[in-house]
Order: sequence, then C-alpha cells, then structure tokens
Amino acid sequence: MKAFITTDTPVTDEVLNLIAYLPTKSLPKIVESGFFQKLTDRDFMRIGYLLAKKGYEEGGSPIGGVIIDNETRQILGKGHNTLVQENHPYNHGETSAARDAGRRDFSQTTMFTTLSPCDICTALIYSQQFNRLVVGDVTNFSGNEELLRQKGVRVDILEDPELITFFAKYMKEKPDQGLEDWKGVAAVRKAATAKGSK
Amino acid sequence: MKAFITTDTPVTDEVLNLIAYLPTKSLPKIVESGFFQKLTDRDFMRIGYLLAKKGYEEGGSPIGGVIIDNETRQILGKGHNTLVQENHPYNHGETSAARDAGRRDFSQTTMFTTLSPCDICTALIYSQQFNRLVVGDVTNFSGNEELLRQKGVRVDILEDPELITFFAKYMKEKPDQGLEDWKGVAAVRKAATAKGSK
Repeated sequence: MKAFITTDTPVTDEVLNLIAYLPTKSLPKIVESGFFQKLTDRDFMRIGYLLAKKGYEEGGSPIGGVIIDNETRQILGKGHNTLVQENHPYNHGETSAARDAGRRDFSQTTMFTTLSPCDICTALIYSQQFNRLVVGDVTNFSGNEELLRQKGVRVDILEDPELITFFAKYMKEKPDQGLEDWKGVAAVRKAATAKGSK
Repeated sequence: MKAFITTDTPVTDEVLNLIAYLPTKSLPKIVESGFFQKLTDRDFMRIGYLLAKKGYEEGGSPIGGVIIDNETRQILGKGHNTLVQENHPYNHGETSAARDAGRRDFSQTTMFTTLSPCDICTALIYSQQFNRLVVGDVTNFSGNEELLRQKGVRVDILEDPELITFFAKYMKEKPDQGLEDWKGVAAVRKAATAKGSK
C-alpha cells in the first residue's frame, strides 16, 4: 500500500494536524519518510502548537512536545500536557513526548517544546542526554535554557507569535491551572489564602 | 462490611506486602484508618521496599515510592520504577507514586523513596512542594538531599540494611539497566563504546 502522505504532499496546517493526531507508531505506515525530511524546525514547532491546541480543546493545559531524530527527521515521540486529562500532576509537553518515545538513545535527537521547560523537564532533557532543545515561547517563566546549555544541550529559541498569543490567552483564562502545572496545587492554595487575607 | 485489615491487625511483612499490591484507591475499603495511624516511618519504607521487590520480580528496576498524608498517615500514592514494564524512560519510584496520587496539595505529605532521588525526581519533589522526603538508601548516587533541604523540604535518611543489600545485588546483576535509569540509553551506549575501544 502507498503511504497516504507522500514526499510531494504540500506542507499545510491540515497535514501537520493529521500528524499531530496520529499515534506515533503509526506514522511510518501513513507518512513517507521523504515528507519528514522536508519539514523545517518551524514545521515541527507547528506540530507542537497543534498538539497544544488539541490539549486546550480537551480542557487541558496547552503545551506540546515533539521529539525527532536529527538525521532522518522522523518523529520518535510527541504529546501534550495531561494534567487535567489524566489527573497527572507533572505530565508536561516534554515528559509526555519522552514517555511516548520510550527507552531510546536520545543523544542524536531534538526535543521541540512550545513552552520554556520547567525544572522537571529540564532535568529530564539533560539526564536523558538530548542533543538539542528548541523552545517556542520564552516570554513566560523558567530561564532553564542557560542551565541546559551548561549541561551540553544545544538550545535554540524559535518564537512563534501565534503560539505566544495563544498561550498568553490561556494563562489569562485559567491562571490557577497554569500555576498548578508549574508549582502544584499547594501553590494555588497558598495564592488563594494570600488573596483572601488581603 | 468490616475492613479486612483492622486497627488491631499485627504489622507483619505479609500485611505490608498486601498493602503494596492493593490499588491505592481501594485501601480505604480494605484497611481501617487506625491501622495506618500505627505504622511507623520504618513500616512505610518497608512498603517501599516491598514495591521495589515487586518491580524486581517483574524484571524491572527495584525502586519504590510511597506518599502519605502527614496527619492521617493514609497512603495517597505509591508505585515503583517501570522503565522495563512500561518501556518508560523516566518513571522512577517517586514519579510513579506522584502519578498514582494525582493532582493534590502535597505540602502536608511525606514521600518515602527507597533510593536517593535523581535530578528529575528531585525537581518533582520541590516543585510540587512536598513537606518531607524520607530516603532508604543513600549509599549510591545523587547527593540531591542537600539541594532539597535548601528548597525547604525536610529530608530524613532512614537506612535499611536489607534494602541496601538488595539494591546493591541488583546493580551488580544489571549495571546497564541501573545506568539507563539514571542517564538514559545514551550513557549505556557510550560506556559500551568506551569499553570496546580499550
């Protein structure tokens, strides 16, 4: 059977969204390897953004992660935050993508994340010896990019204005959920108590 | 219906092992709250050890974690490393227990871990604002206990000679699996290459 997405298929949001929704293991059956070869870093970040949008539509925190092989550009793992969907206190974009990828040598791979990584994901990225990290939104939080560079990870910032606007809108809508992702329910309760005692 | 384990049930390895195997959500139906009230820190560490043994018997990495409420001493989450069982690159004892506990305020809870925490689990523990960490084996790795103290987590060492002997035996049996848990497949490959080129 021929692959549904071929090397000649134009790169559109619709195709990238299909790839975001397909199970990672199914990709080699549906998408010709040549198609991935022609995708740019910006296209993989776009897939991360579309995963984040999927998470948002499910009521979750909109942060996506995609892991690719540096040479073949094949997607090895992808996912999005599942705090709400799985009642999962620390499954962020990056941890979700790494869980999807399974036990692998990550030293020749790149992690794309839509949002600057938290401390947990930062430790994951350097412990598992990822070669490269590409971050889509560094306007909020973290500052862990410098630590990752010190640990030997190549870090590139690839800001996408649409992604940044989208995430800022979410944070305005659900500030408590955003805080919980970062610092846990404990921080949300403390903030509520501090507010109540004013 | 009466609880199967009551306040008067003696604390034996068999009972603690039953608790290790029962789904966390089922515990309030099977175990009277008074039984948990009488368990010491050493008993909860023992449950962690029994979870580690369960993991070992499944072919996995033998590291267990247990989270309890500081006041009620109820178990809120527990688990063991699932590197092998779930093909999961970073699900250690602590991350497994936190995943099991779900979205919670951890600021009045204690995490018991059989092994000194890695960088990922360390970030999890302080980010989610755990009140206290009890570590069963600090003979290997890490040294993250000091960082956790700086972050405001109370850290106690509760060494269990049987647990330490057991883990040392495993590390001798499966050194590559032990290394992979800590530093990923990349580190195992690098070590093999270095050995081969000698």
